[in-house]
Amino acid sequence: MSTTIDVPESSNVVKGTAPLLAAPREEAAGGWRKGIAIMDFILRLGAIAASLGAAATMANSDETLPFFTQFFQFEASYDSFTAFQFFVVAMAFVGGYLVLSLPFSVVTIIRPHALGARLLLIILDTVFLTLTTSSGAAAAAVVYLAHNGNQDSNWLAICNQFGDFCQSTSGAVISSFVAMVFFVLLIVFSALALRRNH
Amino acid sequence: MSTTIDVPESSNVVKGTAPLLAAPREEAAGGWRKGIAIMDFILRLGAIAASLGAAATMANSDETLPFFTQFFQFEASYDSFTAFQFFVVAMAFVGGYLVLSLPFSVVTIIRPHALGARLLLIILDTVFLTLTTSSGAAAAAVVYLAHNGNQDSNWLAICNQFGDFCQSTSGAVISSFVAMVFFVLLIVFSALALRRNH
Repeated sequence: MSTTIDVPESSNVVKGTAPLLAAPREEAAGGWRKGIAIMDFILRLGAIAASLGAAATMANSDETLPFFTQFFQFEASYDSFTAFQFFVVAMAFVGGYLVLSLPFSVVTIIRPHALGARLLLIILDTVFLTLTTSSGAAAAAVVYLAHNGNQDSNWLAICNQFGDFCQSTSGAVISSFVAMVFFVLLIVFSALALRRNH
Repeated sequence: MSTTIDVPESSNVVKGTAPLLAAPREEAAGGWRKGIAIMDFILRLGAIAASLGAAATMANSDETLPFFTQFFQFEASYDSFTAFQFFVVAMAFVGGYLVLSLPFSVVTIIRPHALGARLLLIILDTVFLTLTTSSGAAAAAVVYLAHNGNQDSNWLAICNQFGDFCQSTSGAVISSFVAMVFFVLLIVFSALALRRNH
């Protein structure tokens, strides 16, 4: 549809015939892609903060009640719930991936036409988006039950007793949802940059 | 990196100088894209079956126990848990989106170079991937609690009483994870097709 001509460096024939038409468009496309690549890098930094913050908040969310019986003390920590354990592991994993993905993001800034790196990033981002979303949603479901309980199955709300625990787990869940939004934006921007005609 | 030259129809100058080089590569790229577009359509049909199957299974998962007290009868249905309600609504919504996306998928089969439709699909797929994953994971967390209970918060496993209910909800969760895998494949294939050099 568009009349853009993509001229690789090696094709001297084409460059010889129509250099004035091709060169400026190519330059503009590169600048546009570079802007998206810089945005990608910034979004990644935000996602690192959100995911590692979520993991740290959840991991430090244990609360011990000040009263205890002869036999055991009342304590709630992320270890109590499998969904929260999964959350901590998944978020630490996502944070690690994001840190490792920064060099690839830098490659796309330096070389806006390096589509291999971008393709690798969009595929891995999709996989880690599902990891972020699933761990966040599973933790959210448990947090909801902790807040409200469930009458039909006779599960009592534990947030009346463990208020601080519920607060920090809720915060961690919100932080993971922020990371999720960053991932969706990363994928959308990568898809825009991968587009052939612009 | 590659020496492919993308020649739009309107640039007669370039076509005049190097038609033998450009034409066959363009044709091959179109065929390759068309294959991906057909795969996209088939994956969408699979995802429709998985998501609507998940919604239907979860919506029909109520079980009434054969004994009752004077005051109330023991009954479990997807209405009992907010996560399951969200699951049914989200899965029906995802199924509806997938049906509506089929025409756009057909457009990418007919016109392999129509990148606008593909870009729209990859962005919407990403959004609905998060919806599928979050509803599936939230329901999975509740299903896990229903199977195993939680000792620290004194939540008892209800699957001993409501066996059929647990079975059908577990099946629905698995079906949603199948839909999730389809979505990830859809996004990866769309990203491959969006790539400029091939």
